[in-house]
Amino acid sequence: MSAEAGGGDSSPAGELSGTRPRVEIVGLGLIGSSLGLALRAAGYHVSGTDLDRSRTLRAKEVGALDEVGEDELAGLAFVATPASEVAGVARRLLARVGQGAPRPPLAVTDVAGVKAGIVAAVGHALFVGGHPMAGSEQVGPDGADAELFRGATWVLTPTAFTDEEAYARVRLVVRNLGADVVALEPAHHDELVAIVSHVPHLTAASLMVLAAEASESEAALLRLAAGGFRDMTRVAAGDPTIWPDVLEANADAVLHVLDALRMRLDDVRTLVERRDREAIVSLLGRAQEARRNLPARAPTPERVVEIRLAVPDRPGVLAEVTTLLGHLGINVRDLSIAHSSEGERGVLLLALDRDDASRAEDALAKSGYHPSLRRLA
Amino acid sequence: MSAEAGGGDSSPAGELSGTRPRVEIVGLGLIGSSLGLALRAAGYHVSGTDLDRSRTLRAKEVGALDEVGEDELAGLAFVATPASEVAGVARRLLARVGQGAPRPPLAVTDVAGVKAGIVAAVGHALFVGGHPMAGSEQVGPDGADAELFRGATWVLTPTAFTDEEAYARVRLVVRNLGADVVALEPAHHDELVAIVSHVPHLTAASLMVLAAEASESEAALLRLAAGGFRDMTRVAAGDPTIWPDVLEANADAVLHVLDALRMRLDDVRTLVERRDREAIVSLLGRAQEARRNLPARAPTPERVVEIRLAVPDRPGVLAEVTTLLGHLGINVRDLSIAHSSEGERGVLLLALDRDDASRAEDALAKSGYHPSLRRLA
Repeated sequence: MSAEAGGGDSSPAGELSGTRPRVEIVGLGLIGSSLGLALRAAGYHVSGTDLDRSRTLRAKEVGALDEVGEDELAGLAFVATPASEVAGVARRLLARVGQGAPRPPLAVTDVAGVKAGIVAAVGHALFVGGHPMAGSEQVGPDGADAELFRGATWVLTPTAFTDEEAYARVRLVVRNLGADVVALEPAHHDELVAIVSHVPHLTAASLMVLAAEASESEAALLRLAAGGFRDMTRVAAGDPTIWPDVLEANADAVLHVLDALRMRLDDVRTLVERRDREAIVSLLGRAQEARRNLPARAPTPERVVEIRLAVPDRPGVLAEVTTLLGHLGINVRDLSIAHSSEGERGVLLLALDRDDASRAEDALAKSGYHPSLRRLA
Repeated sequence: MSAEAGGGDSSPAGELSGTRPRVEIVGLGLIGSSLGLALRAAGYHVSGTDLDRSRTLRAKEVGALDEVGEDELAGLAFVATPASEVAGVARRLLARVGQGAPRPPLAVTDVAGVKAGIVAAVGHALFVGGHPMAGSEQVGPDGADAELFRGATWVLTPTAFTDEEAYARVRLVVRNLGADVVALEPAHHDELVAIVSHVPHLTAASLMVLAAEASESEAALLRLAAGGFRDMTRVAAGDPTIWPDVLEANADAVLHVLDALRMRLDDVRTLVERRDREAIVSLLGRAQEARRNLPARAPTPERVVEIRLAVPDRPGVLAEVTTLLGHLGINVRDLSIAHSSEGERGVLLLALDRDDASRAEDALAKSGYHPSLRRLA
């Protein structure tokens, strides 16, 4: 059998034939409300709640919810509360036993920016940590955007203990919102976001405060803040209240990266002081090359290939394969599993960018799999 | 009389009645070629040269020039060479005495990113330092963009020794390209751009190199580089070869600001280490407020007022008035001068944003002027 409403390939199959698959959301801030809009646009039935009742009602008004309330028929729950509350909410959902429809969601995921602590604290096979790398300077349901996740990278953090059906279910729904999924181990994710998100954010805020303080005596200064400065400090306009949780949860990695940045800036200072023209061009040239090589989005369909992989039907295989590819920076554009009727082996179908295919084949072969490859267009 | 082709108000009056006013450009890289396109679109006749003959010809091909060569009838010359060559080129132009049309340009300006050294090195009343706060990741004539300067801030650095007609001439042409002019003293400009441009650029490059190095062992990293990181590092994609000149010319200010940034980041590190939630929200909240208050562009016409000011006909008055307003962060949207027939007093007309008008009036009155104000719409 193929996994229901999660193991299928592209269209959201119903929990019950002929009905929309059901999803619930706890926490209806910007991300939760955007999720509601996007899920409904993708054909899901969405229920939702927020501790703040007026926010729940506003989310319903802006079209982010079909219904207010929890949904004991939901196949998937998104926890989009503040990070410090995620683990508690997820555990409560997973322990839920109702009267009329006595079951918890078949999978629970979240959207918090730091993962290791939450994944460990929930400690449940049906919980899959998640982090959509998308945001906005807006807040609350009124800032919600159905297109927020389209083309965005969305990290999922399955572990060896993650239920495969639950992971495939989360993955399918996220893909149906138009996001690109990257699978990473929770702690690995946290190290990487310190580099590409947390420390850059702190740096942007520091540059902005520096300029703001200087502008108190130099009102002309902010008029000179041209496109480059505006670009660099844009993230600093975001909601500050999410950051204490993030920085506390990821303090070790953030401190480590702050130290590395400080060393870099000290090196730069030395080059400027010494008027070392050659080393300056060399450093900025490396930065230029790296920036120009930042991966672009959305390859054309003819650039996608499919890898088929027979996999033993044991826990953790899906996590193992996807984090293996994640480590290599390989984008799994689509994924589905088909279990054999005997229930001992399954077939995993992975859609990859053509440029990544041979690296993926090599890595999978080295890890003992037997991949076979075909082009999709 | 009103100043010819420079003291007029909005349309570029001809050097000779019925002909297009003539401008020349030395240096036809991205900025020089963009200037050519923009000037021609605004009705100017443009001649130009570059040491690299093939670049000169390419600039002509892409439509940035009416003619190849210097123009001894030009009312204004833009020096858009590498920064280290600006002073030499400007001095040569100003010393130019031709055979058929024996005069130098009536004003010379430049586009280099650091001003004090160049302005001092040229040391000529007809030279007005300039710095358009606009750029692009493109290079050369093929990257030229006629709209590059529209809405951009363009700093001019007149001094007490600057000829007023020359300043007004440069200012008019720059305004006709759609830029907003801010007048600042050269050294003051250099301090401010260290904060809003040079150190942010070095920081962006440092963050990019840090991420690129980490990604060598963590290929997934750059796939997590979402919108915020892309925004922050965008400037790092620019041409590295312009920077040794910039950093050498502005080394003192850049080192000073690098030290200030380092102190800020050390403070941030302490807050993260101490898990000081309150101070983190406070810092990021200040950054958020400052970023949201970055001045927006393009006020509506009904928000513009005109201030008339009788001014003594002595050197430096125009620089004094405009740098006075520049210090206060007040945007002079348009400026013209009319000399009295006696030649001893003139009238200065300043168009300002309505919100700035009373501060401008106060400041001018305190400095001994007698401003009068009227609305334009």
